[in-house]
Amino acid sequence: MGKRIVVVGGVAAGPKAAARARRRDPEAEITIVEKGDLLSYAGCGLPFYVAGLVHEAEELMCTASGTVRDAGFFKAVKDVQVLTRTLAEKIDRQRKELSVIKLETGERSVLPYDKLVLATGGNPVMPRMKGIDLRRVYRVGHPADAVAIREAVESGEVDRVAIIGGGLIGLEMADALSNQGIDVTIVELKDQLLTWLLDPDIAALLAKHLRSKGVDLRLGAGVKEFEGDAEGNFKAALTDQGPVEADMAIVAIGVRPNVSLAAEAGLKLGTTGAIAVNESLQTSDPDIYAGGDCVESINLITGKPAYVPMGSTANKHGRIIGDNLTGGQERFPGIVGTTVLKSFGFNVGRTGLCEQAARDAGFDVITSVAPSPDCAHYYPANKMVVVKMIADAKTRRLLGAQALGMGDAVKRVDVAATAITFGATLDQFANLDLGYAPPYSTAIDVAAHAANVARNKLEGIARSVSPLDLKRKIDAGEDFVLLDVRSPKEFETEHLPGSQVRLVPLGKLRERSGELPKGKEIITYCKVSLRGYEAARILDAAGFKDVKFLDGGVVAWPYETVTGNGKE
Amino acid sequence: MGKRIVVVGGVAAGPKAAARARRRDPEAEITIVEKGDLLSYAGCGLPFYVAGLVHEAEELMCTASGTVRDAGFFKAVKDVQVLTRTLAEKIDRQRKELSVIKLETGERSVLPYDKLVLATGGNPVMPRMKGIDLRRVYRVGHPADAVAIREAVESGEVDRVAIIGGGLIGLEMADALSNQGIDVTIVELKDQLLTWLLDPDIAALLAKHLRSKGVDLRLGAGVKEFEGDAEGNFKAALTDQGPVEADMAIVAIGVRPNVSLAAEAGLKLGTTGAIAVNESLQTSDPDIYAGGDCVESINLITGKPAYVPMGSTANKHGRIIGDNLTGGQERFPGIVGTTVLKSFGFNVGRTGLCEQAARDAGFDVITSVAPSPDCAHYYPANKMVVVKMIADAKTRRLLGAQALGMGDAVKRVDVAATAITFGATLDQFANLDLGYAPPYSTAIDVAAHAANVARNKLEGIARSVSPLDLKRKIDAGEDFVLLDVRSPKEFETEHLPGSQVRLVPLGKLRERSGELPKGKEIITYCKVSLRGYEAARILDAAGFKDVKFLDGGVVAWPYETVTGNGKE
Repeated sequence: MGKRIVVVGGVAAGPKAAARARRRDPEAEITIVEKGDLLSYAGCGLPFYVAGLVHEAEELMCTASGTVRDAGFFKAVKDVQVLTRTLAEKIDRQRKELSVIKLETGERSVLPYDKLVLATGGNPVMPRMKGIDLRRVYRVGHPADAVAIREAVESGEVDRVAIIGGGLIGLEMADALSNQGIDVTIVELKDQLLTWLLDPDIAALLAKHLRSKGVDLRLGAGVKEFEGDAEGNFKAALTDQGPVEADMAIVAIGVRPNVSLAAEAGLKLGTTGAIAVNESLQTSDPDIYAGGDCVESINLITGKPAYVPMGSTANKHGRIIGDNLTGGQERFPGIVGTTVLKSFGFNVGRTGLCEQAARDAGFDVITSVAPSPDCAHYYPANKMVVVKMIADAKTRRLLGAQALGMGDAVKRVDVAATAITFGATLDQFANLDLGYAPPYSTAIDVAAHAANVARNKLEGIARSVSPLDLKRKIDAGEDFVLLDVRSPKEFETEHLPGSQVRLVPLGKLRERSGELPKGKEIITYCKVSLRGYEAARILDAAGFKDVKFLDGGVVAWPYETVTGNGKE
Repeated sequence: MGKRIVVVGGVAAGPKAAARARRRDPEAEITIVEKGDLLSYAGCGLPFYVAGLVHEAEELMCTASGTVRDAGFFKAVKDVQVLTRTLAEKIDRQRKELSVIKLETGERSVLPYDKLVLATGGNPVMPRMKGIDLRRVYRVGHPADAVAIREAVESGEVDRVAIIGGGLIGLEMADALSNQGIDVTIVELKDQLLTWLLDPDIAALLAKHLRSKGVDLRLGAGVKEFEGDAEGNFKAALTDQGPVEADMAIVAIGVRPNVSLAAEAGLKLGTTGAIAVNESLQTSDPDIYAGGDCVESINLITGKPAYVPMGSTANKHGRIIGDNLTGGQERFPGIVGTTVLKSFGFNVGRTGLCEQAARDAGFDVITSVAPSPDCAHYYPANKMVVVKMIADAKTRRLLGAQALGMGDAVKRVDVAATAITFGATLDQFANLDLGYAPPYSTAIDVAAHAANVARNKLEGIARSVSPLDLKRKIDAGEDFVLLDVRSPKEFETEHLPGSQVRLVPLGKLRERSGELPKGKEIITYCKVSLRGYEAARILDAAGFKDVKFLDGGVVAWPYETVTGNGKE
């Protein structure tokens, strides 16, 4: 008789572990226990079904070649037994038995195991508040949720949606529903979008973009309760900034690991609340493995646990567990927290640590912001991307990168994720031999450029001010010169606000620097702060003592500007 | 008086070095000597001007903000003196003087230097053969070449072009001219395209794609001479495979470093024929730096010199030289040979070593080929990409990667380039925390998947046969089973050729394996070889002794197939 392997959870890590174990061990008896009736569905695809980009929900359950991954498929192809609509109730670790209950019949049974795998996933957090059970209040955790949302949309009775939570799922749902012609309001407790993902300055650029697309953002707004109409339908979210009326609500305030089975069995949970596992993905019981959205991972930069549920990580876990169930010696090294999303045409991504997280971890943080076309500026398809880099001034090590824009931000994030994994310094990063051809990159890629800006800062030849700090100085009416060094035409079209603004085009700056006050602070800027930096170097050389440039220039300025028609 | 810096060459590395030196040293006297009348033009952009994607040649000479980088620009903005149409004739290293001649007047003068920079670039190789001087025979090395080609196209007298050379420039020009409605024939001496860039199997996929787009490929064809008409216009390229008639010819058989000035001054040349430099980019004379297309670089994998001229490398060189001219201590680590191009909609790239180069360097080479959608298969914009990985079986180190397809191949190449730079193993690569969301990646990214296939091979649970070897076996009429495990519908639409083909869908294979001959070799395949691999594992487990799968399946099969209408 082969080894008895029982897997709890049939979505991502579980089936992957089962399939991998089968390919390595033809003798094993492998059983998957899944409480729902669907297997191996693409949870990350739900927003795209709601958006109408995926036509049939079934497509989310299929292999790339179009076969539905149901119990029959697992039996015929993988020789894996799947018990759907079966709840794992209790683990008896002494007897090595899993008690399960068939949800349709209430019938209980016991599955003996040699090795058990917990892939119990995560659940959307639903706050316990008044009105949470109203009709037309949805969460996004299962294909049934997405089907219900799409049905509501197709009913024609939904014109407005209130999305509670400006995180990953909230933003993807905002995009999906806006795509269907629905007015979107996002209510977010924190005063920025994607709090755990992006720094405030980068998040502010995304917020500006979403507002330009007609999204009503209510940042820093806490939801107190949902109000219903006479028929019990959702009518409004009551927030501390006033009511948000809508025809439906989607609650997407986070995901919590589903750990009850593990916790009741006395398995160790980590500091994040998810199941703790070692590098082999064993729980505190070496015969019980766990992977996917129910476990925490080690952040490779801090060495500390982090909870970053991700379908890609779940699949890696599944493969490693499948190996280790069948005599393998595979290790999961950890994560760097890479996260990407598409939002109203913007490509958005982050890897490594955010600025504040890096400071909290004790690093001597330096940052840079570099906007640039994502490919040669003369190549017609070029689009803007803004890259922010976070590095340690002491070791020069790259700690994190964020990127966003209509241009290809994700490639830069993936390259940074790879570099960060291997402990790259800014200097190593800037000299990476990345692919260059005009359709793909500028001769100095924007990511390398961002690294170079940080290197210039470390060297002391570049000094900058952040948009946030500049905004404060303008608003406070401080006495300084905000020097625009672009062309008069660019200036007329759009420039920064404030009485401090002056225009001296870069090409005239050497001859006209005498016009500027030597005693005052000067902050230079241009479109992307290449010319701004050059201008600062010219003024430094001309004996000005307090010259900085604006990080990222007009492109990375997340606030209002003055445009050609005089309107701020 | 400031340090006297003289730079020879005004295109990429030269101006970058000058500008960087200026930003670090306001006192230096910096002079650029350029034999042409154009500065800082984007040589890599020439094919896109010919394609009509870049409307005015001037755009190739502009900064991203639209300022022409002429001598006036360099003077006003950078305080750098530029001598255009000035040829550097001779270096007197003892006296530290550069002799130059003004091409318009013939006037000679001498420029004393403290530090000299050679950024003399490369020249297109033009074979000395009959007919090379005919009208309508072009090379691609300078904006004037591109302007002349576009004028010829716009004259309406050109319907057909013969492109001599199936390398990078040849393919980009093929794309550009085909885009203008011109019939393209490519004549290539080697029996594959992009010989130094891609392995034969990957190059064959590109060739198949180009032929499907109507390009007439003449591989393995040597050009003996060009034939002209009575007016001295190009009429035909006479090759050892017969004449190729056309209205114009473009010769793009390679680039040679322009080293005459350096060689005459007794500076050391490297084994590649380019100028040898140390990590600081100093030539054998420490007061003379060199960078860009005239120098060779160290390949970081082999540790040996390589000549890979690239605009991105030239810009990195320029920055480093600019630093080191002004007291810096910067080092250029080397390259991994990353090269990318767009060709008839295909994104194509390579990094690291090719398979044969890896063998030649003494590695115990293992390879894998993985086709996959570049993002979630249910996401509508998904497109296919094929990734090949080359690794060292002994150390498990990734040595090279190639990728191509309509999908985003370049991101995977850049990630691989980064990983290779840091000596990543296949295992580290497969566990990289790359950005995952349905619009950007599959849950297991194709690059990680390719690494996993190679790991499975190393583990002995995956054994494959290459398309080339399978083709030989089919053609030789060998006795084996070529087992298609896709659906009957997929099979009917298109399947591999050969009397050895049999169909048993994967879902039926466990029950029907008894139909297959136990004594014979079985080669399984599907669309991408995921099901093919699964089938091989099922047959292995069922006691079959000689089962392999086809690397990359139908998608990576570069030869003819049998399609639904019975046509091969």
